[in-house]
Amino acid sequence: MTRFGIPEHDYTPAIRGLCGELDPRCVDDAFARAAWTGIAEPGDRVAGALIEAIGAADALTGLIEAWSPQRILAELRDRHPEAPEIDALSPEATRAARERWLPRLNAGAAVARLRQGQRLGVRLLRPSDELWPVGVDDLGVHAPIALWMRGTPEACAALGRSISLVGARAASGYGEHVAMEAAAGLADRGFAIVSGAAYGIDGTAHRAALASGGHTIAFLAGGPDRFYPSGHDALLTRIVETGAVITELPPGSQPSKWRFLQRNRLIAAASQATVVLEAGWRSGSLNTAGHAAALGRPLGAVPGPVTSPASAGCHRLIREFDAVCVTTPEEMAELTGDADGALLPARSLRETGASPTPTVTRILDSLSARSARAPEDIAARAGFSLAETQAGLGALELDGTVRRRGEGWVRCG
Amino acid sequence: MTRFGIPEHDYTPAIRGLCGELDPRCVDDAFARAAWTGIAEPGDRVAGALIEAIGAADALTGLIEAWSPQRILAELRDRHPEAPEIDALSPEATRAARERWLPRLNAGAAVARLRQGQRLGVRLLRPSDELWPVGVDDLGVHAPIALWMRGTPEACAALGRSISLVGARAASGYGEHVAMEAAAGLADRGFAIVSGAAYGIDGTAHRAALASGGHTIAFLAGGPDRFYPSGHDALLTRIVETGAVITELPPGSQPSKWRFLQRNRLIAAASQATVVLEAGWRSGSLNTAGHAAALGRPLGAVPGPVTSPASAGCHRLIREFDAVCVTTPEEMAELTGDADGALLPARSLRETGASPTPTVTRILDSLSARSARAPEDIAARAGFSLAETQAGLGALELDGTVRRRGEGWVRCG
Repeated sequence: MTRFGIPEHDYTPAIRGLCGELDPRCVDDAFARAAWTGIAEPGDRVAGALIEAIGAADALTGLIEAWSPQRILAELRDRHPEAPEIDALSPEATRAARERWLPRLNAGAAVARLRQGQRLGVRLLRPSDELWPVGVDDLGVHAPIALWMRGTPEACAALGRSISLVGARAASGYGEHVAMEAAAGLADRGFAIVSGAAYGIDGTAHRAALASGGHTIAFLAGGPDRFYPSGHDALLTRIVETGAVITELPPGSQPSKWRFLQRNRLIAAASQATVVLEAGWRSGSLNTAGHAAALGRPLGAVPGPVTSPASAGCHRLIREFDAVCVTTPEEMAELTGDADGALLPARSLRETGASPTPTVTRILDSLSARSARAPEDIAARAGFSLAETQAGLGALELDGTVRRRGEGWVRCG
Repeated sequence: MTRFGIPEHDYTPAIRGLCGELDPRCVDDAFARAAWTGIAEPGDRVAGALIEAIGAADALTGLIEAWSPQRILAELRDRHPEAPEIDALSPEATRAARERWLPRLNAGAAVARLRQGQRLGVRLLRPSDELWPVGVDDLGVHAPIALWMRGTPEACAALGRSISLVGARAASGYGEHVAMEAAAGLADRGFAIVSGAAYGIDGTAHRAALASGGHTIAFLAGGPDRFYPSGHDALLTRIVETGAVITELPPGSQPSKWRFLQRNRLIAAASQATVVLEAGWRSGSLNTAGHAAALGRPLGAVPGPVTSPASAGCHRLIREFDAVCVTTPEEMAELTGDADGALLPARSLRETGASPTPTVTRILDSLSARSARAPEDIAARAGFSLAETQAGLGALELDGTVRRRGEGWVRCG
């Protein structure tokens, strides 16, 4: 039997090898999702809405069979009679989408990508997969259609309790120190560390998580066979061994500027909170921070010296975008609402440095440690009545803070 | 004639010498206020309420003549028949206050302090004085009764456009650098610098303001003759020459812990905004910050390395007390709502690092600078229809970002 213009015996074994245990009824959906990752660019809202509405397999069939926009709407009404109009699926939008998808429709290439994935030991994750990072569903029509994952199931599952640590490629020594402490401290607290495998902050965060024996997950902007930057080949290979490398792009896909920006949305969505550790005024990591804020994910930024341009982006996030100022792994963990680290109740600042009562402060102010003073003298100096002064002195005597000498009083110690 | 138990010819010249041009009807008020600064401790709410209600002179007469609480309430009702009950003037509160004031009632000492003030060249400021720092009136019953000022009228007047710069005594090299930049930058923008003359941040801020030719005002916790710390004698002497040294305590008064805490409220209240430049977790400057926050004055804090305990208090202010993260003199000036430096409208973070449109980004991603690519190839790589791609290429050609080569296109530069 032939589907999607391919003999079934050609694609079924390939997709089965990628998906682990796969319900036979899901083979078409899995193949179609894999194919779509090579047809639609990351974040394509028409593809997202169409697959959500009529399923990946029928959406692919519709593309192959050149369904008209009217046919697509009819299919949609057939399945969801009550569904409201979907803006992304207007006739104009689907017609334009068809034109950008058609040049990439290539059944042979789709099957070749599956085989390449199998050779790499990739697992293809679908939204129904138990390892699917559920946070990305919050992206709605911009959610990935499928994810290509290399690594351990444990690391994928650890995304359920994870924090993204991101920052500038051109990190300073200070930034790298902060990244090391943050990743190690959070790994010790059982958080998986999510980042983008770039030079600088990202790489340091991944390395420190690995060194602490924690889980770490890298999201890539190219295919699972295109480790980027190439200088991080060895690091990414180590992450595949004990953590996970995840991308929404199929094998053979080059990273591009657009794909980096879209990859950032996955970092923000897959983790419970995002922390920018060090970033210049226009660092790309601010884009990840923006995705986190747009998704309502908690956002933290680590301050640094105001004399360092490498921290200017973090200060900007705190000043202009309401990022929480975080200075320790504990404070980063608190961002996720972790019970062990809830924010302390705000105390009154006026109490700071003035914990003793005004009476105690003023009586102690009026005593000498050397010469004894009469209660009347102390009262006048402190500005209290004699009765208040004597009551205060009595209380302080019990504390051992003051003592009597002759008719007067001295301060102890 | 005798008033307050003193022959008029004894106190009138003394008070006249302190107040500049003084309406003869105000001589008693001026003398009584000066005397009160030696009777009630700073921030005494009963004294504040009583003087507000029946005036400083009658309040002093009442104290000398031992008016009963009933008499005080009757006087009050006489003047303000419609006034609501004043909690600070309950019979219990006034009786207790009497007992703490009486031991300090000493007409001879009051006159001696005026003469000492005259010798120092002090000017006694009353709330009606044109040089009175109006901000302190926001302290209500805790406002100072009078202020003893040494310095220039210009500096006093400059409090109308001033920022408090405060911080730890144990400042780091970083903190001192920040204090220098802040004070110089704000002085250049026409702001007077208010601080507390302590070692560390305070002293550096005063010095930098002086060096920039700006106005600087130091609030003290002791009398105007008691420069503290003694190591800042020369600095305070210089401030008197071109700026102002202000205190609510009369000559001869020692600074005390209580008075430092009360002095902090004047720093916060007299300026338009307070900025903590560097402060440890329990620095006394957080007390000043607390007063600023309680008064609704804008509060800023300068971040620093999270590895430096000397910045922990600043980070705490940003995290827990909603202080604004400020990194430059411009941002500090903006705290006051200065028209030249209003906060920039929040921009979308997702735009950051992605200013070109998605179409432009993806088309540029798909071009090579070396080999020309056909529009169909570019469309497939970018994931756009041929029509969209050709329209995009046309626009980029006008910008000079891409150019044709043979049948294809290349990226410029």
